[in-house]
Amino acid sequence: MAIHTRKNTEKIPEPTLRRLPWYLSNAKLMREKGEKYVSSTQISKQINIDASQIAKDLSYVDIAGRTRVGYDIDLLIQVLEDFLGFTNMHKAYLFGVGSLGGALLRDSGLSHFGLQIVGAFDVNPDLVGTKINGIPIYHSDDFEKRMKLDGVNIGVLTVPIAIAQEISDKMIAGGIKAIWNFTPFRIRVPENIVVQNTSLYAHLAVMFNRLNETIKK
Amino acid sequence: MAIHTRKNTEKIPEPTLRRLPWYLSNAKLMREKGEKYVSSTQISKQINIDASQIAKDLSYVDIAGRTRVGYDIDLLIQVLEDFLGFTNMHKAYLFGVGSLGGALLRDSGLSHFGLQIVGAFDVNPDLVGTKINGIPIYHSDDFEKRMKLDGVNIGVLTVPIAIAQEISDKMIAGGIKAIWNFTPFRIRVPENIVVQNTSLYAHLAVMFNRLNETIKK
Repeated sequence: MAIHTRKNTEKIPEPTLRRLPWYLSNAKLMREKGEKYVSSTQISKQINIDASQIAKDLSYVDIAGRTRVGYDIDLLIQVLEDFLGFTNMHKAYLFGVGSLGGALLRDSGLSHFGLQIVGAFDVNPDLVGTKINGIPIYHSDDFEKRMKLDGVNIGVLTVPIAIAQEISDKMIAGGIKAIWNFTPFRIRVPENIVVQNTSLYAHLAVMFNRLNETIKK
Repeated sequence: MAIHTRKNTEKIPEPTLRRLPWYLSNAKLMREKGEKYVSSTQISKQINIDASQIAKDLSYVDIAGRTRVGYDIDLLIQVLEDFLGFTNMHKAYLFGVGSLGGALLRDSGLSHFGLQIVGAFDVNPDLVGTKINGIPIYHSDDFEKRMKLDGVNIGVLTVPIAIAQEISDKMIAGGIKAIWNFTPFRIRVPENIVVQNTSLYAHLAVMFNRLNETIKK
């Protein structure tokens, strides 16, 4: 007897999208432990989120749980990975091979989650023409030429803040559809362009502030 | 004539904390351009956030704007950097020198925002005893011994999900007060421990989903 068969077809909210990887990692962990099925109640106990919230979040994904048994773990993992886009490889360019940019080029983990950086751009003559982790570094002037060859939709932005807007504008003019912005600068883009902000420094600020409060107590 | 002199003393909300670095980077950019003063209206135009929201956010910080002139840029930068904790160096350990962990060790940018990774822990015999970017890698068994020497409050978590909870528990037992969790695993911690989740993979999932919607249109 299948329950939750009605798939929720509304636009999926961002908080849900951010929670789904938690369920995925939890399901992977349960599989490693030899489990075959997992219920939203079990997930709830392990990650401290309401079971009703989990069931609601999973209603956006095309998976049916079974009464008293829960979700088939293998299927849950497969469906979540597909849904989250981790099984399709998405090609990306990285802009700005500084300290953080270079670090991201070296992080092969991103490719396990569907992001393949196929090239990077910089103007530093010591970097242009070299490779990091097998990824070629081109001169920024060659961006439009490369776009015609590589079929890339995503740009990872790791340039200094002084040129963050200018480089974003160039990326979009060249055909980039989504920008993963690692700079602490808030870029402006046309409505049809996707921006995902990941400012490590903003996260640090939150952590330092909360830590100071804790220590003061 | 000073306005906004009343400092807001409530606990600062997380969305405000996440926006403050945007104002900081904008102020730095204005300073590079030779400006001396900036108003919340000017910041608003540049980063596309309501001026009233900016003024409200800045009310949590101890800075006074002047009517028709705005905030003194040098002072605004200094006050924001202090408030956000970027001028104090916070010592941290990193746990798990895999692909992402190694990348973070190589990112010297973190130290410009107040985070100094003073040591890393792993069990891989090829890594233990070596250094990355000058940062020593110790065996995980030496964590408690090192804690007594280094005076560290913050742990950066970049281990595989299967051991994310176990390592977090050990970190806390050893005296770590704040965990910067880069794993896609939702760790459980006692109430007095600060957790900042930065799952690059969750951000990727949001970006892929929004990109697919854009492309379908």
